[in-house]
Amino acid sequence: MLHFDCDYMEGAHPLIMEKLLQTNMEQTPGYGYDSYCQSAKEKIRKFCDMPHADIHFLVGGTQTNATVIDGVLKSYEGVLAAETGHINVHESGAIETSGHKVLVLPQKEGKVRAEDVDNYITNFYNDPTYGHMVAPGMLYISYPTEYGTLYSKNELTALSDVCHKHNIPLFIDGARLGYGLASYAADMGMADIARLCDIFYIGGTKVGALFGEAVVVTNKELLKNFFPIIKQHGALLAKGRLLGIQFDTLFTDNLYLKIARHAIDMAETLKNGFRQKGYRFYIDSPTNQQFLILENNKIEELRKKATFETWGIFDNKHSIVRFATSWATKEEHIQELIKFL
Amino acid sequence: MLHFDCDYMEGAHPLIMEKLLQTNMEQTPGYGYDSYCQSAKEKIRKFCDMPHADIHFLVGGTQTNATVIDGVLKSYEGVLAAETGHINVHESGAIETSGHKVLVLPQKEGKVRAEDVDNYITNFYNDPTYGHMVAPGMLYISYPTEYGTLYSKNELTALSDVCHKHNIPLFIDGARLGYGLASYAADMGMADIARLCDIFYIGGTKVGALFGEAVVVTNKELLKNFFPIIKQHGALLAKGRLLGIQFDTLFTDNLYLKIARHAIDMAETLKNGFRQKGYRFYIDSPTNQQFLILENNKIEELRKKATFETWGIFDNKHSIVRFATSWATKEEHIQELIKFL
Amino acid sequence: MLHFDCDYMEGAHPLIMEKLLQTNMEQTPGYGYDSYCQSAKEKIRKFCDMPHADIHFLVGGTQTNATVIDGVLKSYEGVLAAETGHINVHESGAIETSGHKVLVLPQKEGKVRAEDVDNYITNFYNDPTYGHMVAPGMLYISYPTEYGTLYSKNELTALSDVCHKHNIPLFIDGARLGYGLASYAADMGMADIARLCDIFYIGGTKVGALFGEAVVVTNKELLKNFFPIIKQHGALLAKGRLLGIQFDTLFTDNLYLKIARHAIDMAETLKNGFRQKGYRFYIDSPTNQQFLILENNKIEELRKKATFETWGIFDNKHSIVRFATSWATKEEHIQELIKFL
Amino acid sequence: MLHFDCDYMEGAHPLIMEKLLQTNMEQTPGYGYDSYCQSAKEKIRKFCDMPHADIHFLVGGTQTNATVIDGVLKSYEGVLAAETGHINVHESGAIETSGHKVLVLPQKEGKVRAEDVDNYITNFYNDPTYGHMVAPGMLYISYPTEYGTLYSKNELTALSDVCHKHNIPLFIDGARLGYGLASYAADMGMADIARLCDIFYIGGTKVGALFGEAVVVTNKELLKNFFPIIKQHGALLAKGRLLGIQFDTLFTDNLYLKIARHAIDMAETLKNGFRQKGYRFYIDSPTNQQFLILENNKIEELRKKATFETWGIFDNKHSIVRFATSWATKEEHIQELIKFL
Repeated sequence: MLHFDCDYMEGAHPLIMEKLLQTNMEQTPGYGYDSYCQSAKEKIRKFCDMPHADIHFLVGGTQTNATVIDGVLKSYEGVLAAETGHINVHESGAIETSGHKVLVLPQKEGKVRAEDVDNYITNFYNDPTYGHMVAPGMLYISYPTEYGTLYSKNELTALSDVCHKHNIPLFIDGARLGYGLASYAADMGMADIARLCDIFYIGGTKVGALFGEAVVVTNKELLKNFFPIIKQHGALLAKGRLLGIQFDTLFTDNLYLKIARHAIDMAETLKNGFRQKGYRFYIDSPTNQQFLILENNKIEELRKKATFETWGIFDNKHSIVRFATSWATKEEHIQELIKFL
Repeated sequence: MLHFDCDYMEGAHPLIMEKLLQTNMEQTPGYGYDSYCQSAKEKIRKFCDMPHADIHFLVGGTQTNATVIDGVLKSYEGVLAAETGHINVHESGAIETSGHKVLVLPQKEGKVRAEDVDNYITNFYNDPTYGHMVAPGMLYISYPTEYGTLYSKNELTALSDVCHKHNIPLFIDGARLGYGLASYAADMGMADIARLCDIFYIGGTKVGALFGEAVVVTNKELLKNFFPIIKQHGALLAKGRLLGIQFDTLFTDNLYLKIARHAIDMAETLKNGFRQKGYRFYIDSPTNQQFLILENNKIEELRKKATFETWGIFDNKHSIVRFATSWATKEEHIQELIKFL
Repeated sequence: MLHFDCDYMEGAHPLIMEKLLQTNMEQTPGYGYDSYCQSAKEKIRKFCDMPHADIHFLVGGTQTNATVIDGVLKSYEGVLAAETGHINVHESGAIETSGHKVLVLPQKEGKVRAEDVDNYITNFYNDPTYGHMVAPGMLYISYPTEYGTLYSKNELTALSDVCHKHNIPLFIDGARLGYGLASYAADMGMADIARLCDIFYIGGTKVGALFGEAVVVTNKELLKNFFPIIKQHGALLAKGRLLGIQFDTLFTDNLYLKIARHAIDMAETLKNGFRQKGYRFYIDSPTNQQFLILENNKIEELRKKATFETWGIFDNKHSIVRFATSWATKEEHIQELIKFL
Repeated sequence: MLHFDCDYMEGAHPLIMEKLLQTNMEQTPGYGYDSYCQSAKEKIRKFCDMPHADIHFLVGGTQTNATVIDGVLKSYEGVLAAETGHINVHESGAIETSGHKVLVLPQKEGKVRAEDVDNYITNFYNDPTYGHMVAPGMLYISYPTEYGTLYSKNELTALSDVCHKHNIPLFIDGARLGYGLASYAADMGMADIARLCDIFYIGGTKVGALFGEAVVVTNKELLKNFFPIIKQHGALLAKGRLLGIQFDTLFTDNLYLKIARHAIDMAETLKNGFRQKGYRFYIDSPTNQQFLILENNKIEELRKKATFETWGIFDNKHSIVRFATSWATKEEHIQELIKFL
């Protein structure tokens, strides 16, 4: 059986495992006050071209979203996000658990438009009853989006500008950041991301680490006292050095982008295979998640050979399915799948 | 200047003021443990034909919605509501403040359809990732809706059935309940409302009281220990007897519906006036809120004579405005307005 | 039967009722945007000698405490309070409902000492693990305290100084403020209170109003955008003018302090009566709450004549009981009680 | 330099690292739906003699406490705990963040007494104002306590009985459970713990794992739908199998208790060393945490050789310090320290 369910089915990249093993019996202080965390932070700062950014390591994506958003927002503010945004759909209400409303924006292929953000905020403050409504306190987007699509540099610049215009921070969920930056369609590097937003995070869980997300705060006015907020959200790892070691390895010799590029290459191979066999795509995704429209009987048949996710209903006879590749995907598995089609 | 901004511009019905004055120097225990509250509860139970209902008096609408919804839902559940529902738009996120997500349903003229509720819940549990999503834990509707429209008995029965089918409670926001039941278009009485839902409240603030909402819990499995929840939400009035006295008066000699009917009659007069002058309605509302489409210059002009609410933009040249009547509206004011049109 | 259970057993002072009746059919905008609220605010500002203070009207005490504290604190901060503080004991966890911990200080007769506040904060920041602990973000005290006692001007100045030293705001719960200021033992006026703290509120519910608390924010850096926080907490009264009218009346011709003084005089009479009959006091209270130590059989006997609150167990044979007077207490009732002793 | 700061300074036990390495490139489903988690659960159930217990794996201790407590309590309930309990002191208010109050019990050497629990609950319901107070909804204790002490079987049975008597669940924080059960002073096994409480967790982070806590729910009426609550708290690990693999290894061949026993032996050696050199203990701890009273100059001197935690002030000249051993402590380090004393 071949597995394309998601991008977190294996453990960690072998270089990470090696480093974890090598350092296993070292004694370090807890909670991130170790030299591995410091080293990893320095490397990330350099990679982002942000020598003064604050960096924090958390364990998982939902946790990071909830903790950052709660840390940034005032109690009466909400967070703008695409209707399809992870925080609006797949986090069991973690944002609301912290008391904040997700303010829904229209989306196209998972992306929001600067114009819609502008209109939302402008209309909000034009409404004489706005004091009775939840104020938009930040914008959340994901790069790549939940549909595998990417904002162009122009689009992200426009979003950045509209956020600055209205004086709200822009937060980028980079749970799959590597797969965005390594895409052949990307016209930005990590330094562009860092420059255009106020906070983002570099996903480790889905890009080569056992777990871990590195939050980069480039607008240092935000999250000035983040430590107790992390602790309060149950997001402070006792053996913090595990995060430091993993990110230090990922940001040595460009490992993060190299292994992300592998996932992209595998996705391209898979995409071409499906295309050549005449399959229809639901979305033209340039990253590691591929969305296809399959006949329901075809799905049944494919399930004998491979696992993948059903994403939704397309019409009476067809469903949308997702195949995900990752840093760990083996080319031979892709070939075997294509042969089977 | 004439005022049609909303239905809470005056104090209370004179009979209520009289009773408050009459009882002013009596000494009673606090927090609703007085005989006026007991008497009011008995009268409401009788009026609803629900001899065993639990009844609680709270102060305002947003407070009541937040307290009831938080009291009913489990921590990981959300509340289904129309996109236009008061809890989704005009409560400054009070539901999210208590940790719960508002799960948005499509609406037409402020109403949700049983079919959409059914689909939402069915699709939810069919989604293999539903454990990562906010579970629908109750349905919230308003009667009349935020657009002044009414569910028919058939429609409400269908909603009730679909809630029972999926084993979630149906909660009706009756902030303007009187104006619904007194409408000539209503095909239900309060006993029907009580029978078809699990919890509802009888709005006092907008229908003759200084303030106050009477929560009627007909499904007694819910909110079994509501007192500390009310207190915790800051919704427990020290001099609870003020609520008892008001509702006791409103439910003596059918005062509640009688004064609500007056508002309906005033709204009909106003509606006819506008119609005869050729004005266009945004929605055909049978209750005390009337929504019109006016040219923007016309609005300017009318503002010299009357106050009313701008509800939204219709097109480049037109806006939607709302005129509200109430138990206290004077017929001569309506006539003066019509003359001015 | 005579009633001394609490200070909120009657309605409102007759002058308030008269004014409410007089203005009953006037039409005003909602939510506090009416001229009565503006007038009341001006009078309060003048009374406090704080021409620029922000003033907000809320409905009840628990609600006010929870809303102010949640509005002031950052998400990871707690509020320092006496172990006996109302927020720590009798608010059903409303502070925790908003996500904040009550940080308990030792107390003597309901009062905290500046030295203890200083030590708490100093020790906190000296503890190397303080990032894992709840940071003290404000100090809450009540004046008078829950035991009827009063801070002297020296004591309050010391608390004010220690708060400024550590850069946290001082918040005074004045649910019974009038009964403190009108006490013969008070060495401060309302302007002293206003000057020495950052926020306080003037209790109406217990001092002559039907309900209502006036929050005075003298440190205007705090609660800059309080309106949506009030709304979100369900604490925004639709007919806000009811609060304006009541406080306008209370602050006309010094009514607030005059009626509070009556309660003090009644308490003094009651105290002297008990003392002459040889009763023992649990605390020497100079305000409207009197705490006595009574034999349990004596309590049984007294209950035939009067109602009052049992406050706690003193020893096997004795309990602590509370008798409360108010603006509405009749001297003849006190005399009747004393005769009965 | 020798390190005795805490019990989480190293990585994981070598057998765990070996297993993680061995399984690293296997593909498994996420979120705990893998065979390693199933196997680990079976082994734990057997070890606890609880064939039907529900078991959940979370990442860290504060997270586990907050998630379990929020999952069990109703919104208006609080959790009883020793004043020194981890949830009351060192979790940055994570319990309050979820809206719940920690109800403080007196403690002796970190332990609470059944009698005090009984009195608290009895007095609570005897108080006529209990509806205004936070209801005790569960009891939290830690085994071993924050001071390294252990409840005897008699003491735990008494606590269990008093909880059943008052119908509240007993929850045991077992962040250091292994070091309790492996102590020579323990008169209970894990099956006793399981039988006497309603929920407990087996700490991995401090006892041989990289991270991870295994929650064992023996009273299956509780936490029936725990999955979305875990997710909502940001506590659901994507690569759940990492937890399964670690606990499966810890519960193979009794590894968990074997390595815990090593920590105990090291602590005994250290204790004897200190004792022979005439040092004074603050508490007689039978587990891996040792608390000593040291002269402040002595502390300065010792810091040249070893790191350890300052726990508090004892008197003007002395402080309380903590030395912790763990599964990874080397005997030669203990000997070196003793020699240095």
